[in-house]
Amino acid sequence: MTDAPPPSTSTRVVAAAIELFAEHGFDATSVEQIARAAGVSRSTFFRQFGGKEDVVFADHEELLHSLQAYLDEPHDNPWTAVCDASLQVFRHFAADPDLARRRYTIVREVPVLRNREIVTVFRYERLFDEYLRRALPGLDPLDAVGFAALVTAVHNHVLRRLLRGERVPQTTLRRALDDVLRRFGVHPDAPPPSDDDLTIAAFPRGMPVAEVARRLQGILPR
Amino acid sequence: MTDAPPPSTSTRVVAAAIELFAEHGFDATSVEQIARAAGVSRSTFFRQFGGKEDVVFADHEELLHSLQAYLDEPHDNPWTAVCDASLQVFRHFAADPDLARRRYTIVREVPVLRNREIVTVFRYERLFDEYLRRALPGLDPLDAVGFAALVTAVHNHVLRRLLRGERVPQTTLRRALDDVLRRFGVHPDAPPPSDDDLTIAAFPRGMPVAEVARRLQGILPR
Repeated sequence: MTDAPPPSTSTRVVAAAIELFAEHGFDATSVEQIARAAGVSRSTFFRQFGGKEDVVFADHEELLHSLQAYLDEPHDNPWTAVCDASLQVFRHFAADPDLARRRYTIVREVPVLRNREIVTVFRYERLFDEYLRRALPGLDPLDAVGFAALVTAVHNHVLRRLLRGERVPQTTLRRALDDVLRRFGVHPDAPPPSDDDLTIAAFPRGMPVAEVARRLQGILPR
Repeated sequence: MTDAPPPSTSTRVVAAAIELFAEHGFDATSVEQIARAAGVSRSTFFRQFGGKEDVVFADHEELLHSLQAYLDEPHDNPWTAVCDASLQVFRHFAADPDLARRRYTIVREVPVLRNREIVTVFRYERLFDEYLRRALPGLDPLDAVGFAALVTAVHNHVLRRLLRGERVPQTTLRRALDDVLRRFGVHPDAPPPSDDDLTIAAFPRGMPVAEVARRLQGILPR
């Protein structure tokens, strides 16, 4: 059995900053205080984060980066890949709900942080949208835009319930995402088409044509 | 027959500002220049708008205000009321596409305006979300959040096509919103699609997937 690795400098600085913001307020806390509390120099702080605001969103930067890498891998089903990416974000914050709740409280109280949060959320939406268009050439952009927006909105609503103090198991989000997949007619549990001289394909009426085509790729001879 | 009313001071200032921003750039244009071009005093400008940024979003402020009033009226069907509100926003910008396009170009080029646009869009989403929860007590908040997000995302995508120079008739948005209503099973005309509502297609096994997709385009609701 090995010990857990020590927290990275970045994690330590973020935790120290959130602690100070929660105690003294965002505006009243200086970069000097954060650096001192985390045991790093002022210049290390500025090199690692752009400024005081950025430290609050450091987790999102890392998450966006790792989701981009995850979506760059090949996936059999791009729709569920987006849902899995969204679950990864949820799991990240649910892993340390106390820290996540302190951060949420700070963000809610400072208008400039609240606006930055909205802009950050939109980056997830755009990441999912762009991924779907890339993974499903020929997909109606409205379906990509809509699916990305719905997954993001549903995820945020479920995460916000956790941040407000509710105990929210991951299955709550999973079920909500299942509903999203069904609304777009792309739930993987839909019955598979049979195979004969004549191919009979059965699919939900609302399924985007590009998704029908994608599923048929696996069945029909090239 | 009467003449059209003269444009309000506010409309005149907005038009003058957009004109100057488009010609000289947002950063290089001063409030003094805008005030002079619109024939108002500097203090009138600041009283009417908070600052240079606000003039770019003046239309959104007015729209959000009038949509709030519209949604405060009684509506038989809250879902279609949200769609109608979204169509009102589209019609507003489509009424003067040249002005809307100039504004769009300015917003795209200035990061601080781009972020403010995202925050503004989120205000529509929240307006719709809150309205649905108020109008439909007992509604699962996930449905309110999701429907509001989907309507907003679909609207923005269709409007953006117009802003990028395409000719986009209002019916394009209307059809896209019909799809949103169907995805949530709340379209007033049509039975909701579900996993039980299957389309069965039969085609020769050797038919290229692209051809299958092309033929399905004509059958599936869009």
